[in-house]
Amino acid sequence: MAVAYPQFFGTKNVDTSLMVSSSSSVCPVILSQDELKKVAAYKAVEFVESGMIVGLGTGSTAKHAVDKIAELLHSGKLKNIVGIPTSKITHEQAVSLGIPLSDLNKHPIVDLAIDGADEVDPQMNLVKGRGGSLLREKMVEAATKKFIVIVDESKLVNYIGGSGLAMPVEIVPFCWEFTLKRLEMLFIEAGCVGKLRTAGGSGGEEPYVTDNGNYIIDLYFKKDMGDLKDASDAILRLAGVVEHGMFIDMATTVIVAGKLGVSITNKL
Amino acid sequence: MAVAYPQFFGTKNVDTSLMVSSSSSVCPVILSQDELKKVAAYKAVEFVESGMIVGLGTGSTAKHAVDKIAELLHSGKLKNIVGIPTSKITHEQAVSLGIPLSDLNKHPIVDLAIDGADEVDPQMNLVKGRGGSLLREKMVEAATKKFIVIVDESKLVNYIGGSGLAMPVEIVPFCWEFTLKRLEMLFIEAGCVGKLRTAGGSGGEEPYVTDNGNYIIDLYFKKDMGDLKDASDAILRLAGVVEHGMFIDMATTVIVAGKLGVSITNKL
Repeated sequence: MAVAYPQFFGTKNVDTSLMVSSSSSVCPVILSQDELKKVAAYKAVEFVESGMIVGLGTGSTAKHAVDKIAELLHSGKLKNIVGIPTSKITHEQAVSLGIPLSDLNKHPIVDLAIDGADEVDPQMNLVKGRGGSLLREKMVEAATKKFIVIVDESKLVNYIGGSGLAMPVEIVPFCWEFTLKRLEMLFIEAGCVGKLRTAGGSGGEEPYVTDNGNYIIDLYFKKDMGDLKDASDAILRLAGVVEHGMFIDMATTVIVAGKLGVSITNKL
Repeated sequence: MAVAYPQFFGTKNVDTSLMVSSSSSVCPVILSQDELKKVAAYKAVEFVESGMIVGLGTGSTAKHAVDKIAELLHSGKLKNIVGIPTSKITHEQAVSLGIPLSDLNKHPIVDLAIDGADEVDPQMNLVKGRGGSLLREKMVEAATKKFIVIVDESKLVNYIGGSGLAMPVEIVPFCWEFTLKRLEMLFIEAGCVGKLRTAGGSGGEEPYVTDNGNYIIDLYFKKDMGDLKDASDAILRLAGVVEHGMFIDMATTVIVAGKLGVSITNKL
């Protein structure tokens, strides 16, 4: 049983010959969201070959891929994998699973990276970083020859920001209120509202602090922000901004797990 | 006694009517470099008016301006000045001198800023940050209606990077060697070499850490890097880069103190 998203990804820049892919791991039963994440993750791990330098993503979907890679290493089906973790938390997970690790200093070219995304638009642009590790993810995935994005179908959006959920921007803590206002002003026509991310759990209002010691401003859009490359440059030109969560033109493959099956779309 | 730099700044985008300015504070004697810095700084402070929000620069030249502003406040010639410091060190200097201070959160629009520069090109583009505080300086000076740059004539260069000295880039510490290599590759045709800035004094090789907890890569160019706005965007698009030391199209006035006098050039 398989289903594709041709109506979603269109046919202009994607390899439609691969858009429908049968998957023996998908059953015609109702799967939970976490099971769908696992389906996409396991499908992605099929692309990993022995000897590869592999970027290890962060988040609930990528976690399944890291688990699977470790399982294949221990069973001997994969050999000589070197993992490049995209966050401290993935580093810890990979260490606990016994995956050999390195970093971009020693391996500046990554063969393949597997990571989740918070939004995927029809051009395979992404929003990432709701989990808080967008900068390290972007560094690793920008150094990657093949970047496989794994999502369940709830992450598909018509335009970036279209889920109504956050597009995160990592900023330096210095005068963050000022930077927040400047970010909102950039996208005033798109009805942009920014909020400082706080560290949840304790119920306090302390700012969330990234792996790099920075803060996160979550931007919410009422409308399409327009050309994404222009938007990206405008954000990056603001002094005080470190990085944003839009991954434009970086994904080479998107694997979507839906209730009826799995779809693999390759960028041409 | 006065001298201008018309042959340097040209006449295309600058107000030549103001290029020659007499200055009673310049004597026809040989002045040291520090005396020249003081001449430029004092000239700039003449533009400060009571009631202004004033950006206070960082470095050996800007320090003289901050001293002078404090002197005028204490003598009563200036009143109701609010200073916005561009670094921790300037904050400390201003506090010790009793200058009332605020920040960009409370005062997102700054009337006038006075700061030094490491290089000034004929289009009034700057290199700043050899002193290590480029990010906060850029945040304040981007919020400024009138940005007066004060330099001695040794800082004039034919093109950005032309002094053969550093153009600093502030980066996150994570995988800094990787980011250094990517920066060099961006400007390989300009013979770019990058070096991690180390904390001097102790003789060690510990990295220099900025006010924001980041590292500095100093870039050295053998040739002109070409279009500066393109270069700026290329640098900012690298994940891992926080900010760079090129201040493009930001200065509205440049005051140059030379051995024979002082020149004021306004951007049209």
